[in-house]
Amino acid sequence: MPVSDPLTHSPSGKRRARGLGLPLSGCPGPLNAITDVPGVTVGLTTLSDDAAPSIRTGVTAVLPRPHADLLSPVWAGCFTMNGNGEMTGTHWIGEAGWFTGPVTLTNTLSLGVAHHATNRWMVDHFRPRLEEKGLWLLPVAAETYDGWLNDIYGQHVTEAHVLAAIDGAVSGPIPEGSVGGGTGMICYEFKGGTGTASRRVTVAGQEVTVGVLVQANHGLRPWLTVCGQPVGADLPGKTVWTRETGSIIAVIATDAPLLPIQLQRLARRAALGIGRGGTPSGNNSGDIFLAFSTANNPGPLPEPRRLNLEAIGNDRLDALFMAVVESVDEAVLNAMLAAESCTGHKGRHVAALDGERLATLVRR
Amino acid sequence: MPVSDPLTHSPSGKRRARGLGLPLSGCPGPLNAITDVPGVTVGLTTLSDDAAPSIRTGVTAVLPRPHADLLSPVWAGCFTMNGNGEMTGTHWIGEAGWFTGPVTLTNTLSLGVAHHATNRWMVDHFRPRLEEKGLWLLPVAAETYDGWLNDIYGQHVTEAHVLAAIDGAVSGPIPEGSVGGGTGMICYEFKGGTGTASRRVTVAGQEVTVGVLVQANHGLRPWLTVCGQPVGADLPGKTVWTRETGSIIAVIATDAPLLPIQLQRLARRAALGIGRGGTPSGNNSGDIFLAFSTANNPGPLPEPRRLNLEAIGNDRLDALFMAVVESVDEAVLNAMLAAESCTGHKGRHVAALDGERLATLVRR
Amino acid sequence: MPVSDPLTHSPSGKRRARGLGLPLSGCPGPLNAITDVPGVTVGLTTLSDDAAPSIRTGVTAVLPRPHADLLSPVWAGCFTMNGNGEMTGTHWIGEAGWFTGPVTLTNTLSLGVAHHATNRWMVDHFRPRLEEKGLWLLPVAAETYDGWLNDIYGQHVTEAHVLAAIDGAVSGPIPEGSVGGGTGMICYEFKGGTGTASRRVTVAGQEVTVGVLVQANHGLRPWLTVCGQPVGADLPGKTVWTRETGSIIAVIATDAPLLPIQLQRLARRAALGIGRGGTPSGNNSGDIFLAFSTANNPGPLPEPRRLNLEAIGNDRLDALFMAVVESVDEAVLNAMLAAESCTGHKGRHVAALDGERLATLVRR
Amino acid sequence: MPVSDPLTHSPSGKRRARGLGLPLSGCPGPLNAITDVPGVTVGLTTLSDDAAPSIRTGVTAVLPRPHADLLSPVWAGCFTMNGNGEMTGTHWIGEAGWFTGPVTLTNTLSLGVAHHATNRWMVDHFRPRLEEKGLWLLPVAAETYDGWLNDIYGQHVTEAHVLAAIDGAVSGPIPEGSVGGGTGMICYEFKGGTGTASRRVTVAGQEVTVGVLVQANHGLRPWLTVCGQPVGADLPGKTVWTRETGSIIAVIATDAPLLPIQLQRLARRAALGIGRGGTPSGNNSGDIFLAFSTANNPGPLPEPRRLNLEAIGNDRLDALFMAVVESVDEAVLNAMLAAESCTGHKGRHVAALDGERLATLVRR
Repeated sequence: MPVSDPLTHSPSGKRRARGLGLPLSGCPGPLNAITDVPGVTVGLTTLSDDAAPSIRTGVTAVLPRPHADLLSPVWAGCFTMNGNGEMTGTHWIGEAGWFTGPVTLTNTLSLGVAHHATNRWMVDHFRPRLEEKGLWLLPVAAETYDGWLNDIYGQHVTEAHVLAAIDGAVSGPIPEGSVGGGTGMICYEFKGGTGTASRRVTVAGQEVTVGVLVQANHGLRPWLTVCGQPVGADLPGKTVWTRETGSIIAVIATDAPLLPIQLQRLARRAALGIGRGGTPSGNNSGDIFLAFSTANNPGPLPEPRRLNLEAIGNDRLDALFMAVVESVDEAVLNAMLAAESCTGHKGRHVAALDGERLATLVRR
Repeated sequence: MPVSDPLTHSPSGKRRARGLGLPLSGCPGPLNAITDVPGVTVGLTTLSDDAAPSIRTGVTAVLPRPHADLLSPVWAGCFTMNGNGEMTGTHWIGEAGWFTGPVTLTNTLSLGVAHHATNRWMVDHFRPRLEEKGLWLLPVAAETYDGWLNDIYGQHVTEAHVLAAIDGAVSGPIPEGSVGGGTGMICYEFKGGTGTASRRVTVAGQEVTVGVLVQANHGLRPWLTVCGQPVGADLPGKTVWTRETGSIIAVIATDAPLLPIQLQRLARRAALGIGRGGTPSGNNSGDIFLAFSTANNPGPLPEPRRLNLEAIGNDRLDALFMAVVESVDEAVLNAMLAAESCTGHKGRHVAALDGERLATLVRR
Repeated sequence: MPVSDPLTHSPSGKRRARGLGLPLSGCPGPLNAITDVPGVTVGLTTLSDDAAPSIRTGVTAVLPRPHADLLSPVWAGCFTMNGNGEMTGTHWIGEAGWFTGPVTLTNTLSLGVAHHATNRWMVDHFRPRLEEKGLWLLPVAAETYDGWLNDIYGQHVTEAHVLAAIDGAVSGPIPEGSVGGGTGMICYEFKGGTGTASRRVTVAGQEVTVGVLVQANHGLRPWLTVCGQPVGADLPGKTVWTRETGSIIAVIATDAPLLPIQLQRLARRAALGIGRGGTPSGNNSGDIFLAFSTANNPGPLPEPRRLNLEAIGNDRLDALFMAVVESVDEAVLNAMLAAESCTGHKGRHVAALDGERLATLVRR
Repeated sequence: MPVSDPLTHSPSGKRRARGLGLPLSGCPGPLNAITDVPGVTVGLTTLSDDAAPSIRTGVTAVLPRPHADLLSPVWAGCFTMNGNGEMTGTHWIGEAGWFTGPVTLTNTLSLGVAHHATNRWMVDHFRPRLEEKGLWLLPVAAETYDGWLNDIYGQHVTEAHVLAAIDGAVSGPIPEGSVGGGTGMICYEFKGGTGTASRRVTVAGQEVTVGVLVQANHGLRPWLTVCGQPVGADLPGKTVWTRETGSIIAVIATDAPLLPIQLQRLARRAALGIGRGGTPSGNNSGDIFLAFSTANNPGPLPEPRRLNLEAIGNDRLDALFMAVVESVDEAVLNAMLAAESCTGHKGRHVAALDGERLATLVRR
């Protein structure tokens, strides 16, 4: 397990869940990341400076297509397991089954800026066609609450931060933990943040990839379950809060050709993935999931007169469903394992999960 | 306008809305009926005998494909504008976007028999394949309440009645009014029942048909609006009830190639169609709508490994949406205009709407 | 009909639908406005200067409670008739049945700023309690597209504009037409914008008010139907677009005590209201509706340990349903009738609907 | 652990999950059954005779109120995790938030009979009031597929069988496993069937009970996970099928006072409960969940003019959510542990799960 293997180590060098030898099932892609889905890129703007520790926040951008092709919709579906959160763009995803442009993740009070700046980015890059065709966009921006470690009421994320995340999106291994929109996140009362994982499966004779990126900010320590082991009770730490105060956003990408109604089904399976971690999807959590497919590219907007969609038959989807469940579960683990202990707003401290100790507990 | 023109006259000889010269918009198909959609057939079992006037009920069967091809699903979508009613099969339609087999419409307390008998019919006709492949079916059965004119608590519809409706399904002009499941229905406090209408439109370079069949049993007289005219107040009659006590089921068929998510959109437009008649979709009404497309036939179950769907682009759907709105509105009118005054259970009487008088009021 | 009667005239002096004697049914409140619901206020920021005609946009703020009580949730429900648009906050409204704070309406590309500024306003006014309790908000911001008359890609709405709309919210008569978020709107190819109407009804022994505010930006001229008359064809004018390119947002307020699930039902009836105007709810339209009740005030957040809700029985809701249908329909008319002809971005011109001519057509 | 302790042993004497000492969390009620919720009763009709082994089916009736009070609605909510199945009554539950009368569970092709007979039972017991008030009912009937062990196409369940289940509903310990609607069920390729469990929790100062009854018929052996242990791979057995071919229905009862929108939230948590068992909610599974509360009894239909609902604040619901997750998971285990190996239709055999062996595997 060389540190340079993205399957087992985050770019920071910290061990991922597979680097700890946790008994995870399924076969990940080479990066074990959402970027295993061809064409999908991720950009991160991190606002975290120990000299000004009140600001612990950022922006994550997930680009479903290469920058130059971002005016081409991707087929998509959503599911809200618990709606104490926000994801924009879902009215149209529910109606037509697609969205266009980058997906951004940030903190709860910066969602507006993320939405605004995403529109800005799209106008800056596609204005002639937008004007000529009279197009508008309905950006997908989502959020989780980082107000314990971050001065969230200060609304420190700016348009420039969002544009930088979009501009900086790249393929390859993805930094995890306290980066991007996940910078100030807390998960099962440990430091949480950005996490990713993937699965390769063969369905209906075709090898396809499912990649997941989460912004993990949910759960109470006593609930924490890893690979089926209720480890939370044996991982003591300072109580951060006595009641669920977080959220989890999951973005699921695939190159499997699927109908929008099938992508809704994939999004729904993310609920089972987070459930494996022990959460009952608490009242204060925004557990909102997006699934998209890069297949069946209809070309740049406006929508063509006629559509032709290829899709995997419903009867073959179980392997994809399981891939979503497993990837979401593992991405949450990866977020926690890559995160660093953090002291933030008002001197509040959240400790990182100790991966070695976790591995020992799981193995016992 | 020869009586034999199905556009203007019901098979019984009564004038339909177009036979009265009402100012209806849009271009219907040759039959102005759901059977204008190639392959769609309708069967009716009517239980109505003046010698035993307590029984005023029946069954309507809409077959989306020819009898021999009923194991091939049709792509579909549903919408519940007001859920005081029942339509089975909708969990699966919402999940996979298709259903298989006949659609049956009957009275509220006979829905179970309709469901049971539809399973029976499918087993009787496709047992070897069902057994070999381990298949089950999730029949679409829907209902409206005819308990004012019919001894509904007597549950007089039998399995044989339902099988006869399915077996008897034919193409061509459809009897309207007090027939089939619509036998005991009441609409805007006039005699209601079964009605149908259709539209032909050209979308994305393709001529397609939208056909609608309703079981119209909703509304209060003061609400009744025809071609925009609030005629209800000027059509006095005996009060049947003081509060909405009905329902309307609409079945929308089309040969336009559409994704399931698009068929949900068509189903939703039926709400606007019934709204034109004046109803606010009252609390006691089950206003439940089903839309299906005969295009993109995947062949008999089980579902194939891979799907290929052609579809009209979303940006071209407005003509189809308007076709649904207009057809639903006109089908309700046709149901009322074809219905005959009826004395039923406990000597209760409901008068038919006087078409000539209605036409005069609309023209004033 | 004195010009000073808010029932019949907009504050600008233009005749409203009732001022033109159109045959509208139902009994409005004294202002015939959403502000007839006690405690509800409206603020408008209008960006429209003939010296810089490229900017025709603005912000409308609807405050469900007095400024000082805006941390107390209102019970609410939503419905998306056609989701080509955005309304934030709906995941939580669907989950818990309430939202907190102002509702803002603006143009499609300024929704982010409206969301951001609403958070800002809430933090500025309630920061101690938000911090102490660790609260976040999920603002309700909605939009319609004004890119034909407005340089929408310029994103000219600022945080200050949104704050001014919220700060400026008042009770009393509401300016209509080309004001606030409705400044650059187009409705049935006439100048559209902000409109309002109300109804008073007695349900279950209680007199209650339903008030509606719309941002009307939808429809094609040939579809336009007023009081049942298909007047669009007889109101010639320059073609603005050949395909639906708008949206309509409706905000429904009531003081009737209702459960969240019942407020979803009210929101759904707005679809029937817009349908009366002739639209089939076109593909390019964001027809998204919000209903809230000021009754059963649970007090400022956080939510209390136990809730006690009084509600009208479902069986009595038809009068409220009809009130919604009628108010939405009339509010759209009022928006068009109050709007002034406008020359905007790139010299494009949209004419106002001629009220006298309309009245003549409806009366013929 | 005396055999007579219903917490640890099924009435048949077989050990339940707690009788095997599995490390289950939470505090069950005294019966560890849905009947721990005061007033809730269960009736079972089992069709299983080794002399005629082709018939392995039955009916389960869950009565949310005592027989004499079955015309009083219960507040309710539903969730469909995967809709390859049927549960009737859900349109109205989604609309008004309540249902009336017994809930019945049976096989897929007998759902119609269950629906029909439930109407029959209600008419037989409440006809005068139904007639006087002009009432209809929308029974809740649900199903799972038992066609591997049972001659399902024979439709062997009769009206009398359903009436007997309803009539026979009692409080107290509930037989589990191959009884009632669960008679022919298969779960993770072991014999499945009827299972139950409960939790007592204190929320907002009130001690309340959550009780669950499942008809467990889902899952593939390799997926099976018990108390976090992936035991499926170590419990070899004959392959029953290579693809998910089942379903699970969960009925969740509580005496906690909850709004309908909150009961939808409880129903949604059942998905996390089944997820703990290892299933990704496969395509061929009807995973449909119903939650109801016996509190806030509005009295017999028709609905009163005004409603008064007490409810637990949303912020206190996490304990109830967790109670649902745990109870559903445990009820599935109890179903499998109580079931007996069975030879049925066409000589097909399904082995029961060996509880002792399972316990050893979980403890390792």
